[in-house]
Amino acid sequence: RIDELMEPLHAADIADLFEQIGYNDRAALIGLWSRGIDGEILSELDESIREEVIELLPHEVLTEAVRELDSDDVVDLIEDLEEPQQERILGALEDSDRAAVEQSLTYPEYSAGRLMQREVVTAPDDWTVGQAIDFLRNAKELPDQFYHVILIDPRWHPTGYVTLGKLLSSKRAVPLTDITEDSFRTIDVLEEEGDVAYAFNQYHLISAPVVDADDRLVGVITIDDAMAVLDEEHEEDILRLAGVGEGSLSDSVVETTKQRLPWLAVNLVTAILASIVIAQFEGVIGRIVALAVLMPIVASMGGNAGTQALTVAVRAIATRDLTGSNMWRVVRREATVGLFNGVIFAVVMGAVGWFWFGSAMIGVVLAAAMVVNLVVAGLAGILVPVALEKAGVDPALASGAFVTTVTDVVGFFAFLGLAAVVLL
Amino acid sequence: RIDELMEPLHAADIADLFEQIGYNDRAALIGLWSRGIDGEILSELDESIREEVIELLPHEVLTEAVRELDSDDVVDLIEDLEEPQQERILGALEDSDRAAVEQSLTYPEYSAGRLMQREVVTAPDDWTVGQAIDFLRNAKELPDQFYHVILIDPRWHPTGYVTLGKLLSSKRAVPLTDITEDSFRTIDVLEEEGDVAYAFNQYHLISAPVVDADDRLVGVITIDDAMAVLDEEHEEDILRLAGVGEGSLSDSVVETTKQRLPWLAVNLVTAILASIVIAQFEGVIGRIVALAVLMPIVASMGGNAGTQALTVAVRAIATRDLTGSNMWRVVRREATVGLFNGVIFAVVMGAVGWFWFGSAMIGVVLAAAMVVNLVVAGLAGILVPVALEKAGVDPALASGAFVTTVTDVVGFFAFLGLAAVVLL
Ligand SMILES: [Mg+2]
Ligand SMILES: [Mg+2]
Ligand SMILES: [Mg+2]
Ligand SMILES: [Mg+2]
Ligand SMILES: [Mg+2]
Ligand SMILES: [Mg+2]
Ligand SMILES: [Mg+2]
Ligand SMILES: [Mg+2]
Ligand SMILES: [Mg+2]
Ligand SMILES: [Mg+2]
Ligand SMILES: [Mg+2]
Ligand SMILES: [Mg+2]
Ligand SMILES: [Mg+2]
Repeated sequence: RIDELMEPLHAADIADLFEQIGYNDRAALIGLWSRGIDGEILSELDESIREEVIELLPHEVLTEAVRELDSDDVVDLIEDLEEPQQERILGALEDSDRAAVEQSLTYPEYSAGRLMQREVVTAPDDWTVGQAIDFLRNAKELPDQFYHVILIDPRWHPTGYVTLGKLLSSKRAVPLTDITEDSFRTIDVLEEEGDVAYAFNQYHLISAPVVDADDRLVGVITIDDAMAVLDEEHEEDILRLAGVGEGSLSDSVVETTKQRLPWLAVNLVTAILASIVIAQFEGVIGRIVALAVLMPIVASMGGNAGTQALTVAVRAIATRDLTGSNMWRVVRREATVGLFNGVIFAVVMGAVGWFWFGSAMIGVVLAAAMVVNLVVAGLAGILVPVALEKAGVDPALASGAFVTTVTDVVGFFAFLGLAAVVLL
Repeated sequence: RIDELMEPLHAADIADLFEQIGYNDRAALIGLWSRGIDGEILSELDESIREEVIELLPHEVLTEAVRELDSDDVVDLIEDLEEPQQERILGALEDSDRAAVEQSLTYPEYSAGRLMQREVVTAPDDWTVGQAIDFLRNAKELPDQFYHVILIDPRWHPTGYVTLGKLLSSKRAVPLTDITEDSFRTIDVLEEEGDVAYAFNQYHLISAPVVDADDRLVGVITIDDAMAVLDEEHEEDILRLAGVGEGSLSDSVVETTKQRLPWLAVNLVTAILASIVIAQFEGVIGRIVALAVLMPIVASMGGNAGTQALTVAVRAIATRDLTGSNMWRVVRREATVGLFNGVIFAVVMGAVGWFWFGSAMIGVVLAAAMVVNLVVAGLAGILVPVALEKAGVDPALASGAFVTTVTDVVGFFAFLGLAAVVLL
């Protein structure tokens, strides 16, 4: 009965199912259905529960599951496991596969070397279409999926590639070098995986040969894996922007609390900073309580405008759209946009402040502080991420804290300081 | 000289260059180098400047550029143009291509029908490998890139597909139906493009046949286009979460001001709501000014904790990881995480409040309000996005405003209300 339910599902959906049920249900399901778990399901599982599932699997099931995977999927499966579990899986592989996986693991985490598969289809670059076709027809083992034949010279340097479609539709006598694709580009084995994903998306690559420092072919990366990396990079950015380092829905309460705590602690420090600014103006607040009522509006508008600007900047940095050549134009734009919106909301809030508290001067102070804070928000929103990027810090990770500190401090200081000068 | 600089660049990089220079430089560059602009460059250009560039192109250049594109790229190019420009491009196409493009344009925006290319490679599903190979070798025109031969029955229903690699390595007598791929799945022509991108990433599709309501083959979507959509969907989510509807770096100051204004207006309303709450406690603030100093801390911590929870929830909804089956577990988790972090920061802030203002009771009030607000933040952070999703509103778009309104109002009310009860 359980087979009937699970068999029609895709491995990726089965993995999602395992992620969505709780720990006890998961153990029970594996107990009942361990034979059903194959390599594809394992490699789809979220890292947060992979280790747990692997520990529950009988040895034969694990061996069989792992042997059917391409080298890149084995690498992805074991790179985050503990040593003994890694050994268990490496031990299940055939010797040549084990060597390939161990080779990949020598490259740094998040590098192209970890992402590539070692299974490549190559042809000498002096072959003709006919020779390549005969070679493929007689090859004993070809990768499950491949889209190009990579041409290599005698020293194993890739010099171009040919799509299978062109191979199929060209005359046998045509030299392979006559039908190579313009899109050909190689990837350095040490390149960061995020940059690899960017290159695939920017240049519409379907697969790309990976080369070592001597420019020799060591593997190939395919677009499906690059797409998965693109998705992970986005997840990282979006969660980092919100101050959630990492985290998945299958994490426990304690893990989640720990992930959220650092950013809240940073925010607490910046909130206390803002409070210290407010404390400097206790005297004026004590006399005009309306200021306490209105001051969060200035800070909040600044925080929002700053977040808008910094999010656009962080995204533009990630997509390489913000560069040295357009940076100053963007900075000028952000400042001007801050000024325009500042003036618009200054008029609105000036009126609100005036009518609410019956004091034109409160309205004027509120309006002036609003303009100042929105211009500062625009400038901080662009300059902070750019500066962090230059300093080698991920702008998605830290921009929010810096920018909202600036807008809080400037917002309270401008509003209360102006009030102290004008109203006392 | 300009040719020397531009020729080695990829079309996508040339398009980025056009995006990064200002309006005047752009016009000048096109004036000098219009012959260099081809279809690929046009289809890489950001929508915000595409229309402007097309208007500047001489007729012959545009005609030649458009004729070299696949149907999906022509559709993408013209779908957002004004009527006269659309006509100009359609007029440049050959009749059969024009019909294909016009057919695609009858499908709704953001549907699979707009994303698919009409150029498909098919074979009757009763053919053998040999028949398919002979057909491909003799085909007059094949798409530039294709990865599968789609099998169709006599009524033009797709029944499976075969990779070119399998075709090349199988014996001529083998029936095509013996070597089809398990990964085969069709896409409905009306399916939303975001769902298409999700399916490609989830199921590692490289290409997928698109079918109409009668299950007949109408086109094919390839992974490079699905990857571009995935990237755009992420951009949309990240910008919407920050309250920037859309927007690119090449937008003008006025456009950008307009994009940012609505969210700031929404935020102003919620900030005024929070101020109204504060105004209810003017009396107690007037007597204990320390409350004005400390109250933004409670609101700010709540806002941050709420943003963390809602971002995780919005992302989990986008990746289909948050479903009916695990929702209540996640709600419980968020509330518990809020409680844990609330207690931790309550202790810290209680101590700070006590020592800073020398009043244990201020510390206690601050601590209690912190616990209340972080629990509420966790609950709002998950329940608001889920409710919006159920109501058919994009949770990325509106969650932030709702959640921060809740945390501001609850934060100020809990802190000042408790203070009024305890300290007066
Ligand atoms: Mg999954
Ligand atoms: Mg990994
Ligand atoms: Mg792979
Ligand atoms: Mg894979
Ligand atoms: Mg990364
Ligand atoms: Mg990143
Ligand atoms: Mg770009
Ligand atoms: Mg671009
Ligand atoms: Mg489009
Ligand atoms: Mg395409
Ligand atoms: Mg395309
Ligand atoms: Mg969306
Ligand atoms: Mg998932």
